[in-house]
Amino acid sequence: RGNRVFDLPTTIFEVMSRLSEEHGAINLGQGFPDDRGPADVLAVASDALLNGWNQYPSMMGTPELRQALAGHAKRFYDLDVDWKTETMVTSGATEALTACLLGLINPGDEVVLFQPMYDSYLPIVRLAGGVPRFVSLKAPDWSFTRADLEAAFSAKTKLVLINDPLNPAAKVFTRPELELIAEFVQRFDTLAVCDEVYEHLVFDGRVHIPLMTLPGMRDRCLKIGSAGKTFSLTGWKVGYVTAAPHLLQPVAKAHQFLTFTTAPNLQTAVAYGLGKDEAYFTGLAGGLQAKRDRLAEGLRSVGFDVLPSAGTYFVVADVARFGFAGDDQEFCRRLTAEARVTAIPVSAFFVQDAPTTCVRFCFSKREEVLDAAIERLRARF
Amino acid sequence: RGNRVFDLPTTIFEVMSRLSEEHGAINLGQGFPDDRGPADVLAVASDALLNGWNQYPSMMGTPELRQALAGHAKRFYDLDVDWKTETMVTSGATEALTACLLGLINPGDEVVLFQPMYDSYLPIVRLAGGVPRFVSLKAPDWSFTRADLEAAFSAKTKLVLINDPLNPAAKVFTRPELELIAEFVQRFDTLAVCDEVYEHLVFDGRVHIPLMTLPGMRDRCLKIGSAGKTFSLTGWKVGYVTAAPHLLQPVAKAHQFLTFTTAPNLQTAVAYGLGKDEAYFTGLAGGLQAKRDRLAEGLRSVGFDVLPSAGTYFVVADVARFGFAGDDQEFCRRLTAEARVTAIPVSAFFVQDAPTTCVRFCFSKREEVLDAAIERLRARF
Ligand SMILES: CSCCC(=O)C(=O)O
Ligand SMILES: CSCCC(=O)C(=O)O
Repeated sequence: RGNRVFDLPTTIFEVMSRLSEEHGAINLGQGFPDDRGPADVLAVASDALLNGWNQYPSMMGTPELRQALAGHAKRFYDLDVDWKTETMVTSGATEALTACLLGLINPGDEVVLFQPMYDSYLPIVRLAGGVPRFVSLKAPDWSFTRADLEAAFSAKTKLVLINDPLNPAAKVFTRPELELIAEFVQRFDTLAVCDEVYEHLVFDGRVHIPLMTLPGMRDRCLKIGSAGKTFSLTGWKVGYVTAAPHLLQPVAKAHQFLTFTTAPNLQTAVAYGLGKDEAYFTGLAGGLQAKRDRLAEGLRSVGFDVLPSAGTYFVVADVARFGFAGDDQEFCRRLTAEARVTAIPVSAFFVQDAPTTCVRFCFSKREEVLDAAIERLRARF
Repeated sequence: RGNRVFDLPTTIFEVMSRLSEEHGAINLGQGFPDDRGPADVLAVASDALLNGWNQYPSMMGTPELRQALAGHAKRFYDLDVDWKTETMVTSGATEALTACLLGLINPGDEVVLFQPMYDSYLPIVRLAGGVPRFVSLKAPDWSFTRADLEAAFSAKTKLVLINDPLNPAAKVFTRPELELIAEFVQRFDTLAVCDEVYEHLVFDGRVHIPLMTLPGMRDRCLKIGSAGKTFSLTGWKVGYVTAAPHLLQPVAKAHQFLTFTTAPNLQTAVAYGLGKDEAYFTGLAGGLQAKRDRLAEGLRSVGFDVLPSAGTYFVVADVARFGFAGDDQEFCRRLTAEARVTAIPVSAFFVQDAPTTCVRFCFSKREEVLDAAIERLRARF
């Protein structure tokens, strides 16, 4: 294998966060909220820590969290999920994803990846011996065609990895797009690993549609979720996988040797959180939508060419007009050093066909932080 | 690669814990304490949870915990460790170990493993494309010779994996044994991954000697530790790696795609814990030593042939005299079902040369639990 794990660069998020700190920049790079998270969820976690079990829970997760995951699937997606055989808790969605890929891919299997893609996807596909086949989405609309899928799928396809809502494109896949993917998954008798960590972060009245809910897809999809994203507690590193038993079993085998299990008090709190009322979930999306609008308007007022954001923590701006065409990485380094605002170059999410003039801003920050960032940009541009 | 992760059985610890629960057995199988952990460490974790940062910390760990790790290395082992380049926090020692192996092994590299070995070692070595070479330790003394190492090491050896104190053998490697290993590591210009999660759980006045502290070994060893074991909080899943920068860097590249980071409030509490006074650490070992004696004496009183335990949470008993020679797994299943006490078959820690009459009991339980287990065994034997 040529693509050895240690030949890789440090993840772009860590690189830019470190650079941001060095320059005292406002960090709109790495995707995380800067608020404290829901106070009631924190209180439950604290109570469970002080009064509950702090030894190994079951490697599949605590029964209460697994039941809550099944309840969440029913409530939001009308999915019937057997918590005992179809849910698993992981130490974050990154681990969930790695367990899915290591558990399912055989050496030589082809894996269909949509670009832009999160930066852990390709290294883990390669570690597992998988052969990547890319579908490249292009700014500004990040769409794809039947012909794109025809070119990527083959008899060797083991699975397609889809991130919906899509980081960094802030795209929410439409039902027709999902139907097209589902058609190919079935035609080629393959699987879909669905990274849906931003499932509750969709805007403007949109509804997130898990690929798993489409006809014929229930037993072909592994759905990954993230408590970090759903409860604005990214440091907790609590993720989960929902899948048919025959798909979950091999993934659990990988999980047991990656982390084995996850802190029980955090699981208790996430179980509680998943049961929160509708207002919590709509409030989360509504609050982020307002932040998106605040940052997007600010960026436009400074002259940035802002693309639409339908979900996630992110907006992408095309910075061609600032004359950095061809080097979004350099643009981001200079933005951090000179304007003291940090963004992420979108090319970092591609291995080929990368746009070179797009940068990603994270808007899940307090209003005053967003405003201060805009002021810094205004001073520079 | 023939050894695909999903061709593996579920870890023996989970299998036996589930069986134990089914039978309402006293679980002396899976290694974890049943106490609440140090109240002050819990209080610090709760405070950090309620009042501190709950978003992504640095992927390498929080500065405070990394500094505490360096302080711990100095205080206990007189090791000078640069926290910024030589320490990394992981989501448990299992992740630390997996990151070390995936980060360092190239396909075709040979890896020297001592049997008995923890059950995650071999699958991960194989996932990385490594070729295992075994040194088999034999009950009752679990010793090895120069000739054993000569047979296992070669020009292709990339690293040796050593677990000291050794689970399940409850062996603490002696200085002459470590010197012999160090000699081979240097002669073959190779590395050592040192799983030292039980470093503070050594008995009868013994001192744990990190292989890293031997002459010439400072920059050849990756030392893995576990907050779960050191603070009796196994569910927290906070582990760490200490190693020279050129060794830690590739390991960090693997870590970033396994879990990326670990809950910051737990890191804060572990940092606090590592600074606790001498009395905490001697009290931990002393308390466990008393439990070891209690269980060992009880087992002997029932007729078990108990082997010495120099460290870890475990004692091994040879059950040949009960007439189960050849099937320690069956013995453990029947012990769970009939005596309603669960132990772990030691053969689960071997892939060849396995003893067939040894079972492992975990003694890190409350006195009344140990006593109740002995009474159940007495009723059966
Ligand atoms: C694991 S750090 C990266 C967080 C994130 O999802 C992003 O910034 O895209
Ligand atoms: C990760 S569960 C196993 C705990 C343990 O270290 C053991 O029982 O040997």
